[in-house]
Amino acid sequence: SRSINLAVIPGDGIGQEVVAEGLKVLSAVLPQDVKLETKEYDFGARRYHATGETLTDTDLEQLQAHDAILLGAIGDPSVPSGVLERGFLLKLRFAFDHHVNLRPSKLLPGVQTPLAGQPEIDFVVVREGTEGPYTGNGGTIRKGTPQEVATEVSVNTAFGVERVVRDAFARAQARPRKKLALVHKNNVLTFAGHLWTNVFNKVAEEFPEVTTEYMHVDAATIYLVTQPERFDVIVTDNLFGDIITDLAAAISGGIGVAASGNINPGGTYPSMFEPVHGSAPDIAGQGKADPSATVLSVALLLRHLGHEAEAARIEEAVSADLAERVGGPARSTADIGDALVARVAG
Amino acid sequence: SRSINLAVIPGDGIGQEVVAEGLKVLSAVLPQDVKLETKEYDFGARRYHATGETLTDTDLEQLQAHDAILLGAIGDPSVPSGVLERGFLLKLRFAFDHHVNLRPSKLLPGVQTPLAGQPEIDFVVVREGTEGPYTGNGGTIRKGTPQEVATEVSVNTAFGVERVVRDAFARAQARPRKKLALVHKNNVLTFAGHLWTNVFNKVAEEFPEVTTEYMHVDAATIYLVTQPERFDVIVTDNLFGDIITDLAAAISGGIGVAASGNINPGGTYPSMFEPVHGSAPDIAGQGKADPSATVLSVALLLRHLGHEAEAARIEEAVSADLAERVGGPARSTADIGDALVARVAG
Ligand SMILES: CC(C)[C@H](C(=O)O)[C@@H](O)C(=O)O
Ligand SMILES: CC(C)[C@H](C(=O)O)[C@@H](O)C(=O)O
Repeated sequence: SRSINLAVIPGDGIGQEVVAEGLKVLSAVLPQDVKLETKEYDFGARRYHATGETLTDTDLEQLQAHDAILLGAIGDPSVPSGVLERGFLLKLRFAFDHHVNLRPSKLLPGVQTPLAGQPEIDFVVVREGTEGPYTGNGGTIRKGTPQEVATEVSVNTAFGVERVVRDAFARAQARPRKKLALVHKNNVLTFAGHLWTNVFNKVAEEFPEVTTEYMHVDAATIYLVTQPERFDVIVTDNLFGDIITDLAAAISGGIGVAASGNINPGGTYPSMFEPVHGSAPDIAGQGKADPSATVLSVALLLRHLGHEAEAARIEEAVSADLAERVGGPARSTADIGDALVARVAG
Repeated sequence: SRSINLAVIPGDGIGQEVVAEGLKVLSAVLPQDVKLETKEYDFGARRYHATGETLTDTDLEQLQAHDAILLGAIGDPSVPSGVLERGFLLKLRFAFDHHVNLRPSKLLPGVQTPLAGQPEIDFVVVREGTEGPYTGNGGTIRKGTPQEVATEVSVNTAFGVERVVRDAFARAQARPRKKLALVHKNNVLTFAGHLWTNVFNKVAEEFPEVTTEYMHVDAATIYLVTQPERFDVIVTDNLFGDIITDLAAAISGGIGVAASGNINPGGTYPSMFEPVHGSAPDIAGQGKADPSATVLSVALLLRHLGHEAEAARIEEAVSADLAERVGGPARSTADIGDALVARVAG
């Protein structure tokens, strides 16, 4: 489309800094005739402390009016664990039905990995985003007593599993290697595991060109460090996806370069793009944060909105910038942003 | 004690081969005056196919008569996923209240790791073994239809969490670095997460010398590959423990050397010791399996039964054997076993 109406949520800590650079690069990459409108929202720890609010119905209505959302990071040690996660991040993912949580992992040339050798890493995890142990189902009885019992209920539906599995098959089909791995723990979590496995096998029949495999989540962590090159597309449950995508980020350059999209494929709701990293309060305000993950999230955002050429230009710019950094001095958040602006504009 | 009455469950696939070596080393390391009695049980895929049984009440009664259990591996592709896992392995862990699932990770000299550099890795994961998402709670409605809903319920009790957390604190206290990390996901799984966190903080008051930290499970996978040396003791939930101990094994020499103990600390029930690896049907019967993980599990077994000197001797033997292997030709399962026998006897 010839205009982008973007909601911007810088959030907490380094979120502010990295989003500023993401927006600079976004403005620079867009052709003259694409009109960019942005509106900033002050969600996060400050607003929570000031008003007690995390995300209201009115907020959701306002966000709904945008084509997409760019988020920096939400979270601060001053807020009890879980309040902003459940009250903002997950609330937004659930309210806007972000059922495809897309997390690409690509080890770019020159980028350091903790793995020996220089394995070829280029896969994408399609993490389910609206079910599993993330639903908030469960509860506590006899809280704080020696008789306390706390439960967490993982909820899985054929509807929810099938749509994300189908999305993953379509992505695998569109990639050169056409490989898809289902990661679960179906030998222990047999109820959910059988649902995932059966749906996966059924949808597989519609994609005869896609090579499939099944892998337990524990085994997947082994392969991610010993044979990461074997992966092309992975589809998995919300919690397993959370865990293995942090590992995937770690082996492919760290969370400084890990981008993600919380996608509502049908477009009923705006999709949200965010770096995988958190607000990193320890380095906030010092210009030390690497904005690359946010800039790469902007690329995912552009691709989602149909601006493929611009998305690719950003990815090439980040790749070239990372390769050039090798052995060089540390650069500030803004320096990296400026360098990327120069590259995408050039 | 001056006698060991051991139940031996070779199980499936390479389980048979590695247990044979484990027993050879056990016999060789024991002083003359310690009487070793072993009784073999035929649990696993063959028995399941022959009788439909996985683990009966009578089986449990028989096993109860032993001081400890040595297990090779259970599982075969001919048995549907989950049948032997839930019907045998987990049934045994639950029936014998193996609430401390102990998994040490130590990168021994000369052992290959997929990590760059040669990080110092020497930590132990204390995984809860009788609660969490492993209880088998949950269910399925409208199975096989587009309206299917499958749930998995993670059950966590103050009783269950406190005893494993206390065990982990005691282990941390006994180690030179005295560090303990709680790994959970308390920002999302808030019911279980708060229980774990509160119990952890309460028990911490009894161990003022132990340095504690909390880490989300996703972040833990990052640190395991970028800073494994930071870990000393980790305590975690059953499922998170399953996942991170496979990763821990991968970074510290692979599952060929990863040992584990399923421990009932009070001794009401016999504890069970087993390699972390599975039955590996692809290489079964070829003498290719590395028995080191089983032999190291025998060391954990001996330590549990109070034979510390013999446990240490086995660990030294495995360490020396691994160091000597570097660059050498591949050796058979029995060759490695024989070499270890020579070392512990010598
Ligand atoms: C902050 C937290 C709620 C979130 C998650 O668990 O999904 C984060 O870890 C992520 O991966 O986006
Ligand atoms: C085989 C399976 C039931 C088991 C588990 O999940 O605990 C295994 O992965 C392990 O780690 O011992």
